[in-house]
Amino acid sequence: MNPLSIDKIYSMKAITLRNNKLAVSETTKPTIQDNEVLIKLNLAGVCSTDLEIVKGYVPNFNGILGHEFVGTVAETGENVPSSWQGKRVTATINIGCETCSVCVGEGSEHCPNRTVLGIINRDGIFAEYVAVPEANLVEIPADVPDKLAVFTEPLAAALRIREQLCVPPSRSVAVVGPGRLGMLVGWVLALSGNEVVMLGRREESLELAKKWGLKTDLTEHIEDNVFDFTVETTGNEAGLEHALRITRPRGTIVLKSTYAGPANVNLTKLVVAELNVIGSRCGPFEPAVRLLKTPKANEILDMVEGSYRLADGLAAFEKAAEPGVRKILLTP
Amino acid sequence: MNPLSIDKIYSMKAITLRNNKLAVSETTKPTIQDNEVLIKLNLAGVCSTDLEIVKGYVPNFNGILGHEFVGTVAETGENVPSSWQGKRVTATINIGCETCSVCVGEGSEHCPNRTVLGIINRDGIFAEYVAVPEANLVEIPADVPDKLAVFTEPLAAALRIREQLCVPPSRSVAVVGPGRLGMLVGWVLALSGNEVVMLGRREESLELAKKWGLKTDLTEHIEDNVFDFTVETTGNEAGLEHALRITRPRGTIVLKSTYAGPANVNLTKLVVAELNVIGSRCGPFEPAVRLLKTPKANEILDMVEGSYRLADGLAAFEKAAEPGVRKILLTP
Repeated sequence: MNPLSIDKIYSMKAITLRNNKLAVSETTKPTIQDNEVLIKLNLAGVCSTDLEIVKGYVPNFNGILGHEFVGTVAETGENVPSSWQGKRVTATINIGCETCSVCVGEGSEHCPNRTVLGIINRDGIFAEYVAVPEANLVEIPADVPDKLAVFTEPLAAALRIREQLCVPPSRSVAVVGPGRLGMLVGWVLALSGNEVVMLGRREESLELAKKWGLKTDLTEHIEDNVFDFTVETTGNEAGLEHALRITRPRGTIVLKSTYAGPANVNLTKLVVAELNVIGSRCGPFEPAVRLLKTPKANEILDMVEGSYRLADGLAAFEKAAEPGVRKILLTP
Repeated sequence: MNPLSIDKIYSMKAITLRNNKLAVSETTKPTIQDNEVLIKLNLAGVCSTDLEIVKGYVPNFNGILGHEFVGTVAETGENVPSSWQGKRVTATINIGCETCSVCVGEGSEHCPNRTVLGIINRDGIFAEYVAVPEANLVEIPADVPDKLAVFTEPLAAALRIREQLCVPPSRSVAVVGPGRLGMLVGWVLALSGNEVVMLGRREESLELAKKWGLKTDLTEHIEDNVFDFTVETTGNEAGLEHALRITRPRGTIVLKSTYAGPANVNLTKLVVAELNVIGSRCGPFEPAVRLLKTPKANEILDMVEGSYRLADGLAAFEKAAEPGVRKILLTP
């Protein structure tokens, strides 16, 4: 296929949220800025954040959803080297102003004026085409197939924990919530030799963790004060209460999931036991791609529970929202 | 005075909380275990924790209140060197079992079976005499007068922050709450060259901070996302909400005060801005005593707003509970 041929297409299919209504829409193909490229979608993944946005987590989001993807560069802006054309890529999702002190000091992930693909003030990637700044592009090597490359973003989010904290391999680690992100967190933290215990509310939810050789248990069976590190991935109050309960004095809790609205939580243990609680969000893409090149990464494919066309986006979202369902993929 | 002469006294005055009722009581002089010493009180300090316990913060506390003090060793147990007799001392407040894995690994401050002077299952020091294990004793040097030595415990609690975190001198620091503990936190953090901004709700509450050369502001005047490190010392939800608001992305919040009951707090910022929130409690006594030997420590005396006899304990508690009042001292 000549990637330039797509210039002739002026409309495209996309999964949109407008006025809190999820729909599959025929919408205009994006036009690119001088610093951007146009990417043709190969494969996308539905994330819990997408489901939360549909539930109203980001007030006033209007546009195309989605931020986990792999695609092929179809067009390059004036200031972008044309050598990008035809390359398989994914993209980091935060677009900062690159001029404020936060961008300079902390990175665009924390820019107060940032846009975020499919999350804050910017169209996402559940569409046939998406426009992304060149600065956000990450090339996917030939030996990482699309079905693995689509996991780059959530795997990077899991890796973020290792960017923020030293988690010594001899220390005990619990992951509360064996869901989409929780499983990747457990997978990543076990890579360095940590004994990782995946905790869930139902035995069935722990099957995949067992298959991967991780330890498992029901959260409610865990005694108080036993783990050095606890990663909370459920985003609900009960999960946070458990994390506070099962972490030992002077232990660390990583919050990987946002809490919609105020959380009504007893913080006494946090202070009395001198816990360290750290928020954790987007992570580094290059290390994630390196991991996706390893043979072990094929395990991650076990998380895929269905693939839908964009045209069947509503069914895809419905399936992804079912309890216990992990990764749902979308194709153009 | 011959310290042994007190053996003849069998009753003593103490400030007690029994069945949630604060009282000045005539009670039995403590008898000491083989590993303990009997200390005659010289001077004690009323802490916010004492006021919280009276309000019910520690369910079922029954006994003598108080944990900030300096006294003189009057009697030594069978297994304690008699060389302690007549020495001026204070004492760390946590008594662990010294055998469990928490005591061995993390210290007695976190022992699940610990008692705490005047806080958990153990009589405190608002009394003419107090029994304390030798292991908890810290000698007060001759050049630290009682009126400064009585600040050892809260100063150690402030110093605890420097035990837990690297707070680089070039980084901005805010202390929310210019109260008893907040002032000592600000005083300690400014020692290494940090610019410390003390934040309060009322202009009057900031006078002492100004006198000490600290920067000050009204909490509500502070813009969002400006401080690298924020120490929350108010123990109320509003203080915590402000701390979350004014700390920059990837910044650190230290919680120095417990929250009675569940806190209803929006934790979204914690996750999205990847904040680090760390609980902080009891600190190291020896460094606190070293600081109390420095000329600058005399500033701390500015915090004293009254001195009462134990017999006038109810009036002392009433005064200490008045808004804006800092240190109230107690004499035998």
